[in-house]
Amino acid sequence: MLSFECDYNRGAHPKILKQLVETNEEPLGGYGADKYCVMAKEKILKHCENPEAEVHFLTGGTQTNQIVIDSLLTKYQGVIAAETGHVSLHEAGAIEFTGHKVITLPQREGKLSAETVKKYLEDFYSDENYEHMVFPGMVYISHPTEYGTLYSLNELEELSCLCRSYEIPLYMDGARLGYGLAARETDVTLPDIARLLDVFYIGGTKVGALCGEAVVFTHRNTPKHFLTTIKQHGALLAKGRLLGVQFDTLFTDNLYMEISRNAIETAEELKRIFREKGYRFFIDSPTNQIFIALENEKMENLKRQVKFSFWEKEDLERTVVRFATSWATTMEEIEELGRIL
Amino acid sequence: MLSFECDYNRGAHPKILKQLVETNEEPLGGYGADKYCVMAKEKILKHCENPEAEVHFLTGGTQTNQIVIDSLLTKYQGVIAAETGHVSLHEAGAIEFTGHKVITLPQREGKLSAETVKKYLEDFYSDENYEHMVFPGMVYISHPTEYGTLYSLNELEELSCLCRSYEIPLYMDGARLGYGLAARETDVTLPDIARLLDVFYIGGTKVGALCGEAVVFTHRNTPKHFLTTIKQHGALLAKGRLLGVQFDTLFTDNLYMEISRNAIETAEELKRIFREKGYRFFIDSPTNQIFIALENEKMENLKRQVKFSFWEKEDLERTVVRFATSWATTMEEIEELGRIL
Amino acid sequence: MLSFECDYNRGAHPKILKQLVETNEEPLGGYGADKYCVMAKEKILKHCENPEAEVHFLTGGTQTNQIVIDSLLTKYQGVIAAETGHVSLHEAGAIEFTGHKVITLPQREGKLSAETVKKYLEDFYSDENYEHMVFPGMVYISHPTEYGTLYSLNELEELSCLCRSYEIPLYMDGARLGYGLAARETDVTLPDIARLLDVFYIGGTKVGALCGEAVVFTHRNTPKHFLTTIKQHGALLAKGRLLGVQFDTLFTDNLYMEISRNAIETAEELKRIFREKGYRFFIDSPTNQIFIALENEKMENLKRQVKFSFWEKEDLERTVVRFATSWATTMEEIEELGRIL
Amino acid sequence: MLSFECDYNRGAHPKILKQLVETNEEPLGGYGADKYCVMAKEKILKHCENPEAEVHFLTGGTQTNQIVIDSLLTKYQGVIAAETGHVSLHEAGAIEFTGHKVITLPQREGKLSAETVKKYLEDFYSDENYEHMVFPGMVYISHPTEYGTLYSLNELEELSCLCRSYEIPLYMDGARLGYGLAARETDVTLPDIARLLDVFYIGGTKVGALCGEAVVFTHRNTPKHFLTTIKQHGALLAKGRLLGVQFDTLFTDNLYMEISRNAIETAEELKRIFREKGYRFFIDSPTNQIFIALENEKMENLKRQVKFSFWEKEDLERTVVRFATSWATTMEEIEELGRIL
Repeated sequence: MLSFECDYNRGAHPKILKQLVETNEEPLGGYGADKYCVMAKEKILKHCENPEAEVHFLTGGTQTNQIVIDSLLTKYQGVIAAETGHVSLHEAGAIEFTGHKVITLPQREGKLSAETVKKYLEDFYSDENYEHMVFPGMVYISHPTEYGTLYSLNELEELSCLCRSYEIPLYMDGARLGYGLAARETDVTLPDIARLLDVFYIGGTKVGALCGEAVVFTHRNTPKHFLTTIKQHGALLAKGRLLGVQFDTLFTDNLYMEISRNAIETAEELKRIFREKGYRFFIDSPTNQIFIALENEKMENLKRQVKFSFWEKEDLERTVVRFATSWATTMEEIEELGRIL
Repeated sequence: MLSFECDYNRGAHPKILKQLVETNEEPLGGYGADKYCVMAKEKILKHCENPEAEVHFLTGGTQTNQIVIDSLLTKYQGVIAAETGHVSLHEAGAIEFTGHKVITLPQREGKLSAETVKKYLEDFYSDENYEHMVFPGMVYISHPTEYGTLYSLNELEELSCLCRSYEIPLYMDGARLGYGLAARETDVTLPDIARLLDVFYIGGTKVGALCGEAVVFTHRNTPKHFLTTIKQHGALLAKGRLLGVQFDTLFTDNLYMEISRNAIETAEELKRIFREKGYRFFIDSPTNQIFIALENEKMENLKRQVKFSFWEKEDLERTVVRFATSWATTMEEIEELGRIL
Repeated sequence: MLSFECDYNRGAHPKILKQLVETNEEPLGGYGADKYCVMAKEKILKHCENPEAEVHFLTGGTQTNQIVIDSLLTKYQGVIAAETGHVSLHEAGAIEFTGHKVITLPQREGKLSAETVKKYLEDFYSDENYEHMVFPGMVYISHPTEYGTLYSLNELEELSCLCRSYEIPLYMDGARLGYGLAARETDVTLPDIARLLDVFYIGGTKVGALCGEAVVFTHRNTPKHFLTTIKQHGALLAKGRLLGVQFDTLFTDNLYMEISRNAIETAEELKRIFREKGYRFFIDSPTNQIFIALENEKMENLKRQVKFSFWEKEDLERTVVRFATSWATTMEEIEELGRIL
Repeated sequence: MLSFECDYNRGAHPKILKQLVETNEEPLGGYGADKYCVMAKEKILKHCENPEAEVHFLTGGTQTNQIVIDSLLTKYQGVIAAETGHVSLHEAGAIEFTGHKVITLPQREGKLSAETVKKYLEDFYSDENYEHMVFPGMVYISHPTEYGTLYSLNELEELSCLCRSYEIPLYMDGARLGYGLAARETDVTLPDIARLLDVFYIGGTKVGALCGEAVVFTHRNTPKHFLTTIKQHGALLAKGRLLGVQFDTLFTDNLYMEISRNAIETAEELKRIFREKGYRFFIDSPTNQIFIALENEKMENLKRQVKFSFWEKEDLERTVVRFATSWATTMEEIEELGRIL
């Protein structure tokens, strides 16, 4: 059956597997000190065009969010996020597990505006009782968001400027960062992100790797003894090479951007088909996630021929569903889906 | 200056101090095993008319909320509360500190409706991805609420019925429970609460005691080794007598209810005066907290003669402020405030 | 029955109760901002002879240990303590509850030596794998110790010097500090402690108060937003006056030292009697706790006439028990105990 | 340079990589629900000969210890471990991070005896103050231990019987379980372990996999909503196939046992060489870790030609070092090391 339910249903890009095979026999040091980790970090930093930045590898997205947030917040601080943020809703309380509140603010199309955050911070510090509340110690955004939308360069600049004026870090969850950077409509580049954010991660799991996320601290702000913190959270891989080799491959010959573009191109073709066939878009997403409102009967019929994912009920008769393309989606699959639709 | 800013600005009821003095010389066992704790528990249980109930004493409200919630939730569960709930906003993240999310739902006049909670629970369990989310493991309500409002017996019955059908405990924060029970409009009694709630606390700090809250588990459902949990949270008093003597006094000769009524009577007289003088009520509260919307200039003038507390800005020109009466407020103070108003 | 099982079996010193009664009617601000808290802090600081010091009030000993340790450690650090330390054994895991390991080291008569700690720190930092271990971030000592013994000035100076060279705070649990300062053999004064320690607390619960401990940070090193941390731990009393009034009384006219001396004098008389009657001391304690090794049959007989506390089994036939005097013990009680012995 | 410093310095067994390549294109569901996970679990259960058992996959050893221990303990319990246990010393406080104390007991050659544990449990429950202490809620052992030693069947039976009589789970850290099962001296089989332990894990990271550990709950005792707990700890892999494919391969055609034997055979040959050349063994280990006491000068010389790991200083002139073989060590490497020695 056709499979459009998510962007992590295939293994890894063949070049990654090839490199895992080729380096397999080499004896390498553990815990991320091997040469592939070193090379991967150098290549990522080159793409970031930020000589002050530092890179660390972790295994998955929730793990990365938990560790980055917990390591940057003091114990009495919480993290600001959109109500629809992944850390707010879909991480099984991984942030609260480490003692921190997720302070949720209203969003628009999955995005937090500088204005919304500013109002919250101003109100917080003008409240007489603020010492009895959770201190806002960080701002979390995702890019692309959970709705596939993107921040503009201007929006990121405003958020960055605001956070710096309050001296709290701005953190970007980049689980699908490649797809954001490859989108046609975006005016945001990786060097922009490495300049405006205090910390972000470049998602591997959803962009060609078997697992792995590359965390970038952008101005020598890696928390002290970060390796110990990673270990304390149960997240330190003995064979760090598994992450090093993958990211070294992804950042060789621009592979990461190249395969990201494939997701965008197949998504655009799929959107064209949806439009052509008169489907209604729930939201206008410029990346690899397409949200369609379907009548329930139509949805049940489709389900028998293609996998997609449930998003939310729109009303009693209509359901919002998501189709996701990825680095691995082929135009043949899109055509076949077109025939079904 | 007149002092209406809160209901904890006096010491203790004189009978409590008298009893502390009279029992002072007796050598008593520590950690809540003394005879005054035993007597106080018996008296409270008699007032609850529930032979299955069990009582424990703690020192303050946030501490009680933290310990009750942490001890009843499994590690992957969170607690449902109104957006305006004390645990959501004004406890410095004490719930998240123990690893649990506060799942906030919309409220009306500070209250959670069974309908709102039911919809949340139904949606949660019908979401395909619910295992990736925080399990709702408990419902927290406050009575009176943070806005001084009260649940009706019918509303409590609906919440109780709902929670029991989902097998999650219903917990009542009774920091000001006396004032709720003494309100003229209420149809809810202490035995009702001890029947419908799974756990609740009878507030002492705000109703005549120097400190202390009496937690009631209503059906032999005290968590196993609760004393160890209290100690682990840093909340076990060596001289448990301090709490035992106070609650023994409060529940002798109906003192708790009697002094609670004083707060209601003085609040009613104060509301009469506010109404008479044309002040605008922000919310209609039947208990000891009165919320008034003031023009900012008026507020600044008043501030010089009487203490009250800031609640929130209504708009650029008006502010909502709170006047609180208590067990210790005298009619003379109300009259004097009347002259100022 | 005579009661020598602990030093917290009476209420409060009568002067404290008198002052609670006299200040009871005054309306006072909450959360430790009242004038009695302010006055008490000033008096304590005067006794400390350290103008850089800052004082905060908490309710009990385990609570204080938990909050001080958690607020001074970074998340990946643990606290070094003697194997017999109160935080290691008798606080129900309150330190681990906040995520920190108690790193236990060998002790002698309840005391940690600078030499033992130094060796641990040296070994730790010379281990290639130290980043995979818990960082030692603080040293905890108790004075008097759990065995009633005392550090000499020289021992404290060595520990202080060592900790400062490693830039980790030295913390003293002073649950019974008064009895340590009042001991005849000691060469350590309160100003010494306020100079050599980074943080310590002056115990109230076991020295004349109903509850309460005064935490002293000795060089403007109170953790940022400490009030929020206290609240987050569920430890902020609404009626801070309860602690302020008590410590204000204890530090007026040298009451704290005066009542501490009573415990020492009665303990000395009791020790004289034990010696005279040929009892065997398990350890030589210069403060208010007396450890006696008894044959089991003898112990059972005594139990019927006087309360004391079980300490440990020495062998199959002998048990170590503890007799404690306190600020409230009278010479008449000692004499009566003498007759029983 | 020759590399004997650990057993995780190579990639994966070639059959694993081959299978990753061959299954790479298949679209598979996420989070461990794919067919390779299902097949791998079935094969493992068959090897366990225990139809009541259940299997879950995690990524690394510290993560597995943290999650298993945290999910089985109630909040006020700690885990008993040997002083030399991995969870006690080398996991950066990952257990305390989740709020649980590691209760350390004396060991012999890395092993905990039933007698030692029994004495601790008896003493604990006979202490009057046990409610003020951390409840022992679980026993952790490692097999092979951190010193490469093994429990006998009789020792495991005694521990199992003891734990069952106290109703606390017995947990085995099997990071190197294959090497334990393949040892010549052992009388313990996988079905024995799956019968006597309540939970254990079969280590993949150190026995042929790139990453991955298979947790086995032996009697339908998987904690409720374990997937949510895994996610909450940041440990749920989106591409569960990475673990499923690896363990499916390891448990096909007995590969896991076969490659484990290689480590034993090469270790035996290496031990023969050490003995022949007159080296002194620090401990007699029957598995793949060999501990040798070297004079410091000798050690420095060796270091230039072969990698091994520092264990501990024996005295001022001698150091204990560890040589580890693995599933990937060749007899040629052993011979070459022989020439160097």
